[in-house]
Amino acid sequence: MLLERIKTENPLIHCMTNVVVTNFTANGLLALGASPVMAYAKEEAADLAQVAGGLLLNIGTLSTEEVEAMIIAGKAANQAGVPVVLDPVGAGATSFRTEASLKILKEVDITVLRGNAGEVASLVGVEASVKGVDGAMEGDTIELAKLAAKQFSCVAVVTGEVDVISDGVHVQTVYNGHPWLTKVVGTGCLLGAVVAAFISVSKDDIPNACREAAAYYGIASERAFAETNEQGIGSFQQAFLNQLNKLTDADVKQLTRTEK
Amino acid sequence: MLLERIKTENPLIHCMTNVVVTNFTANGLLALGASPVMAYAKEEAADLAQVAGGLLLNIGTLSTEEVEAMIIAGKAANQAGVPVVLDPVGAGATSFRTEASLKILKEVDITVLRGNAGEVASLVGVEASVKGVDGAMEGDTIELAKLAAKQFSCVAVVTGEVDVISDGVHVQTVYNGHPWLTKVVGTGCLLGAVVAAFISVSKDDIPNACREAAAYYGIASERAFAETNEQGIGSFQQAFLNQLNKLTDADVKQLTRTEK
Amino acid sequence: MLLERIKTENPLIHCMTNVVVTNFTANGLLALGASPVMAYAKEEAADLAQVAGGLLLNIGTLSTEEVEAMIIAGKAANQAGVPVVLDPVGAGATSFRTEASLKILKEVDITVLRGNAGEVASLVGVEASVKGVDGAMEGDTIELAKLAAKQFSCVAVVTGEVDVISDGVHVQTVYNGHPWLTKVVGTGCLLGAVVAAFISVSKDDIPNACREAAAYYGIASERAFAETNEQGIGSFQQAFLNQLNKLTDADVKQLTRTEK
Repeated sequence: MLLERIKTENPLIHCMTNVVVTNFTANGLLALGASPVMAYAKEEAADLAQVAGGLLLNIGTLSTEEVEAMIIAGKAANQAGVPVVLDPVGAGATSFRTEASLKILKEVDITVLRGNAGEVASLVGVEASVKGVDGAMEGDTIELAKLAAKQFSCVAVVTGEVDVISDGVHVQTVYNGHPWLTKVVGTGCLLGAVVAAFISVSKDDIPNACREAAAYYGIASERAFAETNEQGIGSFQQAFLNQLNKLTDADVKQLTRTEK
Repeated sequence: MLLERIKTENPLIHCMTNVVVTNFTANGLLALGASPVMAYAKEEAADLAQVAGGLLLNIGTLSTEEVEAMIIAGKAANQAGVPVVLDPVGAGATSFRTEASLKILKEVDITVLRGNAGEVASLVGVEASVKGVDGAMEGDTIELAKLAAKQFSCVAVVTGEVDVISDGVHVQTVYNGHPWLTKVVGTGCLLGAVVAAFISVSKDDIPNACREAAAYYGIASERAFAETNEQGIGSFQQAFLNQLNKLTDADVKQLTRTEK
Repeated sequence: MLLERIKTENPLIHCMTNVVVTNFTANGLLALGASPVMAYAKEEAADLAQVAGGLLLNIGTLSTEEVEAMIIAGKAANQAGVPVVLDPVGAGATSFRTEASLKILKEVDITVLRGNAGEVASLVGVEASVKGVDGAMEGDTIELAKLAAKQFSCVAVVTGEVDVISDGVHVQTVYNGHPWLTKVVGTGCLLGAVVAAFISVSKDDIPNACREAAAYYGIASERAFAETNEQGIGSFQQAFLNQLNKLTDADVKQLTRTEK
């Protein structure tokens, strides 16, 4: 299993992410055992991406300059064999975000596309069928993940009440997780960074690394809720960081609820 | 009362705010039951502002480009009938901030202006009389709020030890709140966002919505302090988020200390 | 001792720092008793720097525009006699960061240079000898601090398991601190801001102010760990803020472990 490997290798994860979740993402990666580095300038994006273990591109608070820097970083990562995660936050909500995501997908070989059903649907062009993102049926989400993986030649991780992972042919589902994750800002974004860390130590089996990442993440939220549900969501956020740091491979193995 | 309505309607609040408080603002809005979206690029500012329930413009870490994007967003909000809150952080401290605030006030119909006495005074041009912001007399603050509301054709919310709300004619005061709010970064800024959420579900009575917002906010701080004063200000910040999420209309009704 | 003086004088610390640690830095300074102001625009950088008690330049998420604004702010601080701290985050990791740091050091009179051994070594040009930053020997670090202080005519604060402070001739070492500081993002960056606050109230003895700052900071981490080691690193971060606010000069005097 991969958690121990991350804690031993401390992979450097280069994050180009949004200003809302920067601190939370960096603390989450540290809790996991990875080494976060945040860098946005086009002057250094390539230098960092090519020495990193993984690259995260998250478009949550995008600017035109940042798209350019992300593409530079993505191409450098591609050349160096560094896996790249794209998190198309808000794709579908504005054409700026949809187009920026599609441009990145065109210019960079994305290893993992991680988004919720609405975001991923807007990129593959099937918005209509998944209206009411959080209420998307599991069957729909499975088809969507397969479609996105095929269309963009990547592994798709479509997250929600159930997380669905597909390489375009095979599908895995992860049932771990807690609804309070939706009450803390950036939990989806941090999961993208966590996925980058997991795949950085397991490049030969990306779908499985995504499944372990999603299960680990969901289990941490379940434990955090068990500890703090009477105190509230501020306490939950802190307990979640505690658990991201404390969980072991043995915990994850025991508590994972997935289907292949 | 409005808290329940926010929790039912989950209004989308488009925040263009400063980098210091982005995460805290988003988590605070989620705790309240609103849906935060942070977006700064001029390419998408109008798209989001016009579909939002409310727009927050906070100039805390301003750049020239951001002023331009804020004005684009503000005008789109105006056209769509979306209420706009302006938080002129640091107006009076530098001419850049004073001028940017006045430019926004000129180009955009601001629904609510929320600031401390010093910031608001610098905008209406009466700096001298309120020197020593936090020590401003309540009477001065009432006059200031009335003046600002008249001058900028908006509702003014001048916050401090006592919060004063005026539409230029009527005045309401809110006595809830705790001094430790001044020991956590961004509590003033988050209040601006909370006001945006409250007015988004009560457009026909803005002053009353501001009063409820300020009372709710102050009560959350009072409860958080009661829980954590022995532990310290880091714990207070977390308990405050817990309380922002837990308070009900019944709590607010019972604990509000206001005067009309 | 200086802690009481900071709590009395509430020095304004103008921070131009990275987006990862902005909130944490501002909350840490408030906890200490200082008044943080974050401002990045070149239009106001000079206005704020010259009225501040201290200026922090931290290059953690640098852009070309920000380097320019930092130099404007730095020069204004120099003219007004305001002390300036430079934190060259990631110098040595990319040439962009190394060159930006050296440019700032050339254009601005830096009062205190605060970095880890690898960052400082890359600036003085002795990378090779301190490979394996965290494992740098204390003797090496002392030589490095002396060298950096001489080369850049400043006080060098080289932090790590042991913190070393030198003006180029004399050396002081601080043994306070806890390894969990490396598990929270931005603790090095916040220390730079704390140093700025300490030197702002003790301009006539910068090295001693740096020593007190480092000891205070380390003691807060020791206490925070004692309170939270069973809960985890999320809880540690919160307890650390509590302790930064609670410590008194008497605590610091009693618990300091330093050598002159």
